[in-house]
Amino acid sequence: MNYDTLFLKQINEKKSFLCVGLDTDINKIPDEFKKNENPILAFNKDIIEQTADYAAAYKPNMAFYEAFGIKGLQALLETCKILNQLNIPVVLDAKRGDIGNTAKYYAQSIFDEFNVESTTLAPYMGWDSISPFAEYKNKLSFILGLTSNQSAKDFELLEMKNGKKLYETVIEQIEEWRKTTPNLGLVVGATQESELEAIGKTINQTPLLVPGVGAQGGSLEAVVKHLFQDNVLLINMSRSIIYADKPKEAAKKVQKQMQDIAGL
Amino acid sequence: MNYDTLFLKQINEKKSFLCVGLDTDINKIPDEFKKNENPILAFNKDIIEQTADYAAAYKPNMAFYEAFGIKGLQALLETCKILNQLNIPVVLDAKRGDIGNTAKYYAQSIFDEFNVESTTLAPYMGWDSISPFAEYKNKLSFILGLTSNQSAKDFELLEMKNGKKLYETVIEQIEEWRKTTPNLGLVVGATQESELEAIGKTINQTPLLVPGVGAQGGSLEAVVKHLFQDNVLLINMSRSIIYADKPKEAAKKVQKQMQDIAGL
Repeated sequence: MNYDTLFLKQINEKKSFLCVGLDTDINKIPDEFKKNENPILAFNKDIIEQTADYAAAYKPNMAFYEAFGIKGLQALLETCKILNQLNIPVVLDAKRGDIGNTAKYYAQSIFDEFNVESTTLAPYMGWDSISPFAEYKNKLSFILGLTSNQSAKDFELLEMKNGKKLYETVIEQIEEWRKTTPNLGLVVGATQESELEAIGKTINQTPLLVPGVGAQGGSLEAVVKHLFQDNVLLINMSRSIIYADKPKEAAKKVQKQMQDIAGL
Repeated sequence: MNYDTLFLKQINEKKSFLCVGLDTDINKIPDEFKKNENPILAFNKDIIEQTADYAAAYKPNMAFYEAFGIKGLQALLETCKILNQLNIPVVLDAKRGDIGNTAKYYAQSIFDEFNVESTTLAPYMGWDSISPFAEYKNKLSFILGLTSNQSAKDFELLEMKNGKKLYETVIEQIEEWRKTTPNLGLVVGATQESELEAIGKTINQTPLLVPGVGAQGGSLEAVVKHLFQDNVLLINMSRSIIYADKPKEAAKKVQKQMQDIAGL
């Protein structure tokens, strides 16, 4: 299967860009799950059951599982297995970046051990930190372009000699790599509309993973308007779905908003 | 204990900057270890036993352990425990970088679960991806400045509007942060001597982790000459020690070279 087939199928079938961020914190989950042998897994199972009809993908962030040691990682492995059985793709959010020989082992962990469809990578160390992931031709790697956090200004928004910002230079380089390595995508935070507009003009049906809509203040309308090009577009929402009083209703509502905006 | 005390004590006692990179690959370790229940752990134990007299610190890279799943991470946990009992500090090389709320969980994993003294971080996302680690006041976080891989040229060596390269801008920002947050250090690849010289002039007794000496062609003389300022200086060597025919002799030889060069 091609790197984007499973994602596009889910987006089209569900008529939804929703990617549910499984950033599960044992300290934040309802008490009813805490009596289970593995509360994180029990919570994830429940969230998946409630939201699977409305979500095109799920994005567990490694940090939340690593923080709870071996038990956390067992919960993550099982969560990935469940989604695999449902044929729903997983973006294992890891933001890894290391020299080529080491990156190969990270890729092995994420794509072979966890057996997921996609991951996220950091760009700083350049191509040889990315290529071991790209070599998995049927997997999709989203590289950080512009992130949605305030400190993006520290480096990402700095101006380069070429007159562009660092993140613009990174995005242009990724677009260049995509000409021969199409299974690369971008992480683009839903921040300023002017930035989204410029990014939309730079990319060419590039797969996009978009955090920052909702809780962090990004506009769903602006994201869809500027970034949807019949590409893989995943709009990630985590806390506003998984810790909602009624996750099912929250996911359904977001799906409906996306349908209204995009005419899906 | 201060974030640098344990490192400085080891450097002074052992008269060595050697940091042994525990990048243990089950496919590369001698057959004799493969009959053990956990071959990676058995190999690490042997390497530590052989090299502990000559090494100021050890640096396991997370990728190598993650690649072997739960068993790999169990080996890593046990390895960290052994080094902790020997009072030898560990740099858990993870190069993490994520938004603040997520970085907090990575810091919890590395500093609480693995209970190590130090880690490595990626700079791209800026201060809020670093601060949750810096809040562990007695722990030391080395941030990527200039890396030793060829693709460092893709972004790190690009020129900024201010006339400096990206990595120089990152290093200057870290020096600025160190004025109020001294438990930050730098990863500086031992590449061009001219770059090491310039970095030496920019830093102010900044803790440094230096890969790229030996196998990757960096000069031990140049590193010591330009970067040793009575600071925490850790020169990492991995394959050339752990896969040497006689790891003990290899480590002893490197320690002797360091003593001769630095007059330790």
